[in-house]
Amino acid sequence: MTISKRIEDIISRASFIRKMFEEGAQLKAQYGAENVYDFSLGNPNLPPPEKFNELLRDTVDSCGLGDHCYMPNTGYPMVCGSVAEYLAEEQQAPVTNKEVMMTCGASGALNVALKTILDPGDEVLTPAPCFVEYKFYADNHGGTLKTVATKPDFQLDLEALSEAINPKTKAVLINSPNNPTGQVYPEDDLVALGELLEKKGKEFKRTIYLISDEPYRKIVFDGVRVPSIFTSYKNSIIGTSYSKDISIPGERIGFVAVNPEASYKNDLIAGITVANRILGFVNAPALMQRVVACMQGMSVEISEYARKRDILCDGLAGMGYKFIKPAGTFYLFPRSPIPDDVEFANVLKDERVLVVPGSGFDGPGHFRIAFCVDDEVIKNSMPSFQKAIEKYK
Amino acid sequence: MTISKRIEDIISRASFIRKMFEEGAQLKAQYGAENVYDFSLGNPNLPPPEKFNELLRDTVDSCGLGDHCYMPNTGYPMVCGSVAEYLAEEQQAPVTNKEVMMTCGASGALNVALKTILDPGDEVLTPAPCFVEYKFYADNHGGTLKTVATKPDFQLDLEALSEAINPKTKAVLINSPNNPTGQVYPEDDLVALGELLEKKGKEFKRTIYLISDEPYRKIVFDGVRVPSIFTSYKNSIIGTSYSKDISIPGERIGFVAVNPEASYKNDLIAGITVANRILGFVNAPALMQRVVACMQGMSVEISEYARKRDILCDGLAGMGYKFIKPAGTFYLFPRSPIPDDVEFANVLKDERVLVVPGSGFDGPGHFRIAFCVDDEVIKNSMPSFQKAIEKYK
Repeated sequence: MTISKRIEDIISRASFIRKMFEEGAQLKAQYGAENVYDFSLGNPNLPPPEKFNELLRDTVDSCGLGDHCYMPNTGYPMVCGSVAEYLAEEQQAPVTNKEVMMTCGASGALNVALKTILDPGDEVLTPAPCFVEYKFYADNHGGTLKTVATKPDFQLDLEALSEAINPKTKAVLINSPNNPTGQVYPEDDLVALGELLEKKGKEFKRTIYLISDEPYRKIVFDGVRVPSIFTSYKNSIIGTSYSKDISIPGERIGFVAVNPEASYKNDLIAGITVANRILGFVNAPALMQRVVACMQGMSVEISEYARKRDILCDGLAGMGYKFIKPAGTFYLFPRSPIPDDVEFANVLKDERVLVVPGSGFDGPGHFRIAFCVDDEVIKNSMPSFQKAIEKYK
Repeated sequence: MTISKRIEDIISRASFIRKMFEEGAQLKAQYGAENVYDFSLGNPNLPPPEKFNELLRDTVDSCGLGDHCYMPNTGYPMVCGSVAEYLAEEQQAPVTNKEVMMTCGASGALNVALKTILDPGDEVLTPAPCFVEYKFYADNHGGTLKTVATKPDFQLDLEALSEAINPKTKAVLINSPNNPTGQVYPEDDLVALGELLEKKGKEFKRTIYLISDEPYRKIVFDGVRVPSIFTSYKNSIIGTSYSKDISIPGERIGFVAVNPEASYKNDLIAGITVANRILGFVNAPALMQRVVACMQGMSVEISEYARKRDILCDGLAGMGYKFIKPAGTFYLFPRSPIPDDVEFANVLKDERVLVVPGSGFDGPGHFRIAFCVDDEVIKNSMPSFQKAIEKYK
């Protein structure tokens, strides 16, 4: 025995993705990075808003004694207050600084939320396709992630969810705008989901939480509005970050917010505070807390992602690729022209295009294109996409 | 059922410390903060080295496109390289950037290391008194922390450790310089511990890791040297941070380093990389990684902590308090004049002095004074310490 069996297992299962990245690196070495079209990573390529650089400089310049020290595990009360004020407006709910806890990004937020609510054996349901890391997050804290199919347009299938909820269900985890599909759930569906969780909670005599992972909330196109979670269901928790909307994923800053109307609000807040500490996060990075406090509501130039989406969608549609146009995020999730999405990703790789097979998101038969890249990469990749689909015509 | 039973349990057990803090806050409100002598928190009060502010400004000024983006989960290779270069000298071992992974502080480092090695039911041994959070860190990942008594001078009791190691033991976790005792383990003891782990590992046919938590390594007095861990035992892992030695605990930056001679080095490195990602840390904060890369070997003015220690020790010794003088850290761990350390902490609180009872560190009959405070706080607290001990003379 050398390392944990579970970790050993994760490493071995992840090896196919690692292999992909290694082969991608090899391609870049062989053909030059500019001749490889890398759509594999959701690493935002737009620069942070100019205001960010300004605020970062001001914050550093004004640092005084103690400004890099510990603060409450939930974050600076002033920072939580700024977030709460914005969130109250966004969510149309009376959020205060007590209900907001700063975290190391959305993945930190989801881990502390799940640590707080999961007992061994509890299940977390999530609509598929989904972000693959959710499985690990639930497993980290003794839970199990179960996926539930969505409708053909990747919208919530409330009947399927209703059937899937069982006495072990502790939470439903949603992500809208969605990675990898780019879809946004409409308000009616969220309200219906809230009613379903309320009903099932009563039936099974337990609180079923709705956890909303929403780092892409601000990245939406064509005037789409992402509805409030807090008005849809009272036992809801938001986990999110500033990673995508202001392009600072490496700085690990986000927050978790508990619905001010949640039944066991104080337990949740106390639990999240403890979980943030004992999981080793302790607190969200001090300096970035103070920076994002002043950036409420700001974002990168979203119209640039909209333009990239349009270039990509117009190009691929013309070649015969089938997809649901994303309403948000910087992901497109087309159908693979052949059922085996891993094989099709390999075919694309032979054409120097790197994408992630849909199987990696519990969405087999599809593939994910992260279009947070320069316009030129999208444009120059078009002949390669064309060649790949031609093989199956 | 509202939240996780385990978290509920932790919250209820922690309530006595919370009560202490609440009462402390009340005292400060009542008497004015300057009239309450707060020695409860290990929040360093010395400012970061001037070089830190300069480097932070330079790093912010030179930020280019992508500098706040994702990098490998282990950190920037350049940063890991700087750390490795310094560590190779400090540890007298051929550490390279491959064996160093940047983390969210030492608590992040310990959590990813434990997640990487622990199977359900595994035990982690630690000499007591110890940092109370270790119990949670082991428990987070399915393990159990078992404490092993130290000698009366708080040094390692190798016989007791030898007896405690059993077929479930997966790691021994040490912390030298030690929180809360301030003691440093000499090289001979570390080598003997290494031999013991080697022997027991063979006996039980499993690798027993030595994990060294060493955020106080640079905070030592009177020319004391903290010996190398990597030369003491091959299956060793260092987890540490820049929180205490450069006074930036709120920024959450540290690293985990695997002994280049470790038997399953590549598994450990792959496991730690995965654990850092799936636990939600993803990567250590980008900006601070680049700052600390240029601060290898630097620290706050350690002589100031030495002076504080001396003022405190001289004062308390004169009153009849018994203690082992700390060789490092900013903690003093005197015997309580009465067996009930919680009661004595309350007596001190009545005199407006805030300390943490030793029971909180598995060191009953003692109390911890964190002397990372202004000299004036120490000096002004002396009459209160005097009054408290007088009650038992």
